[in-house]
Amino acid sequence: MRKPKIVVLGAGYGGLMTVTRLQKLIGGNEAEIILVNKNEYHYETTWLHEASAGTLHHDRVRYNINKVIQRNKVQFVKATVEEIKFDKQQVILDNGEIDYDYLVIALGSDSETFGIQGLEKYAYAITNVNAARQIREHIEYQFATYHNENEKNDDRLTIVVAGAGFTGIEFLGELTNRIPELCKEYDVERSKVRLVCVDASPMVLPQFDRDLVNYATSLLESKGVEFYPGTIVQQVKEDSVLICKKGEDQLQEIKCGTVIWSAGVRGNCIIEKSGIENMRGRVKVNHDLRIPDKDNVFVIGDCSLIINQESNRPYPPTAQIAMQQGEVCAKNLVKLVHGQDNLESFVFDDKGTVCSLGEDDAIGVVFGKKIKGSSASIMKKVVDNRALFMVGGTSLVLKKGKFKLF
Amino acid sequence: MRKPKIVVLGAGYGGLMTVTRLQKLIGGNEAEIILVNKNEYHYETTWLHEASAGTLHHDRVRYNINKVIQRNKVQFVKATVEEIKFDKQQVILDNGEIDYDYLVIALGSDSETFGIQGLEKYAYAITNVNAARQIREHIEYQFATYHNENEKNDDRLTIVVAGAGFTGIEFLGELTNRIPELCKEYDVERSKVRLVCVDASPMVLPQFDRDLVNYATSLLESKGVEFYPGTIVQQVKEDSVLICKKGEDQLQEIKCGTVIWSAGVRGNCIIEKSGIENMRGRVKVNHDLRIPDKDNVFVIGDCSLIINQESNRPYPPTAQIAMQQGEVCAKNLVKLVHGQDNLESFVFDDKGTVCSLGEDDAIGVVFGKKIKGSSASIMKKVVDNRALFMVGGTSLVLKKGKFKLF
Repeated sequence: MRKPKIVVLGAGYGGLMTVTRLQKLIGGNEAEIILVNKNEYHYETTWLHEASAGTLHHDRVRYNINKVIQRNKVQFVKATVEEIKFDKQQVILDNGEIDYDYLVIALGSDSETFGIQGLEKYAYAITNVNAARQIREHIEYQFATYHNENEKNDDRLTIVVAGAGFTGIEFLGELTNRIPELCKEYDVERSKVRLVCVDASPMVLPQFDRDLVNYATSLLESKGVEFYPGTIVQQVKEDSVLICKKGEDQLQEIKCGTVIWSAGVRGNCIIEKSGIENMRGRVKVNHDLRIPDKDNVFVIGDCSLIINQESNRPYPPTAQIAMQQGEVCAKNLVKLVHGQDNLESFVFDDKGTVCSLGEDDAIGVVFGKKIKGSSASIMKKVVDNRALFMVGGTSLVLKKGKFKLF
Repeated sequence: MRKPKIVVLGAGYGGLMTVTRLQKLIGGNEAEIILVNKNEYHYETTWLHEASAGTLHHDRVRYNINKVIQRNKVQFVKATVEEIKFDKQQVILDNGEIDYDYLVIALGSDSETFGIQGLEKYAYAITNVNAARQIREHIEYQFATYHNENEKNDDRLTIVVAGAGFTGIEFLGELTNRIPELCKEYDVERSKVRLVCVDASPMVLPQFDRDLVNYATSLLESKGVEFYPGTIVQQVKEDSVLICKKGEDQLQEIKCGTVIWSAGVRGNCIIEKSGIENMRGRVKVNHDLRIPDKDNVFVIGDCSLIINQESNRPYPPTAQIAMQQGEVCAKNLVKLVHGQDNLESFVFDDKGTVCSLGEDDAIGVVFGKKIKGSSASIMKKVVDNRALFMVGGTSLVLKKGKFKLF
């Protein structure tokens, strides 16, 4: 008898959690499990701001997928997904095609650019390992170039971060640690460097209480970050950003050497290409994480959309929700393979959120309690290490975890 | 009675050697010594290829001038020289002016660009610490960009070195060590990277015997360097170099991400601006290193021109000759201050030359004997350490010297 074939697309938080749980819950004879991913490594999306700022080497934010999968149970295929053909139960890859009985779509998000002119060409987005190390090198190159030009151009040293959400603020936090190092490395005075944060929203980090946000902005301002809230990016040019105050017409130009775009993500374009009903690449999934009208297809992680019943708004895409979905998805796949139809419903258990503000500082809400300062920073490292533990156990934590030696 | 004022322009090999010898030979009451330099540090020009390739950190190739001068005898002025007014015995600086009784011009060389189109705009020259670290960062940025583009552009990974003289060959030697590291860092296959060396001359390193040169080119070719001898660079573009075989019209385009220009230097432009008779910024000096018709002005180092009586051609500008000139210049300054007119004649004592081919290999001629391989490589480190010793004694060698720990 042919074993059912489970194909998981994407080895991010959701996909990799699904596979690592699945390999524990299911026998090797019960199902064929195939994991498809673009790279041979998984990366910690929530750590990319550190690799981008250059405060953590990019090899520290990724690990080889083969290190955490049981290769007697799971087959890893390195490939890029090009299309999903639901009618044929088939996935088209850049290097072949693959049939499935059960499919898990965990392809992550794309950057949302809102059609802003020049954005794709001139701005950098903190999206993956390749992007992160390019950002690090771009900023280093700007600093290295400064003293090698006949006319010193201070604008080269201005970094504009568009987007005061999680990624933007965490990146700025790392930059405030990194800039003094870059100044030393390239003989630049700190006063020459400008860090600017622009966001359309009137306040940064809208998900947090005002007193936590004030703590965060005061801290970053004290380290030289200039905030432009309620400000829209109209255009990105090679050496500047055009902004305007919301509701006003007056354009202002900020000359700069680097523009980082961190103002939002959308679901994966593969979702849109594959003809499933979606909202900006995200699919509203059933309680059991399957998609309407398709009993053998799950969507989890950033491509899925689940409404928070309390606020009546979608939960934002986070690593935490993706990992919890992966756990439920794995259990439900086992039930389906076993011919059971009492699938588990997914309920998000919000354990809290911590936003890092650089090496030693953070703000957060954990188990309903507000925290800030060094205790929040320690909690952030706990959260980061927990993600490693969930996928790869103690050995992965020891290899890639974040520890501070006192 | 007013002390005579000795002004030394430039803290390269020649200027710094002059000053450090002078401070040993002359009493603090006998003369005022002023050293003018653009940066507060001296750098080892002959090590810049390593900093450019990224095999040695740029802080290892420079040291603070204040560490090697006796500040009770020598006053250091950080300034850029703009002009020399011989009639007024005055030097115009970017931040003031300075009178002299005796002047030593040791301003080093400028890059010789031969008016090639696009060269200044798009090519990088290994000229100083600022340039070296910019080259390192530029190459790293090319590698970092490779995997972050939708269409992979292998040409980004091609590095063209124009000039197969000392600097070009030594830089290529370092690159052959550095490229595998960059490939690992940025997940690039070694086979994607091209290293190309173009030179107008029919042979590389014309100053060496053919069997040494064959050793060098075979070694570099075995590590992937492609040589285009007898080939002229016609134009440098943003992403390519146009070359043609000497004596032919047919242009060939080499697509590339980096062009390094190492095909020659000329004397300093200040020499030309100041109206002294010169050949491409170099002044033919008298035997005592003074310039014709000016009894109180010495020119040493790359700005000076001395004919090799054997070959009837000028000695090439090297650190070795500059340092030997600095020693004689210091002695002659002391004689002038003491009112003696029996100045010493400079005779170049060629101790040999070693050309590095990367970390563990080199070719050279030392005390008339040809050497190659690891023994030559060890000798190269001896030569490098000797330059430090001559200026700053044992303590500088221990701080900045090159040692290999077996």
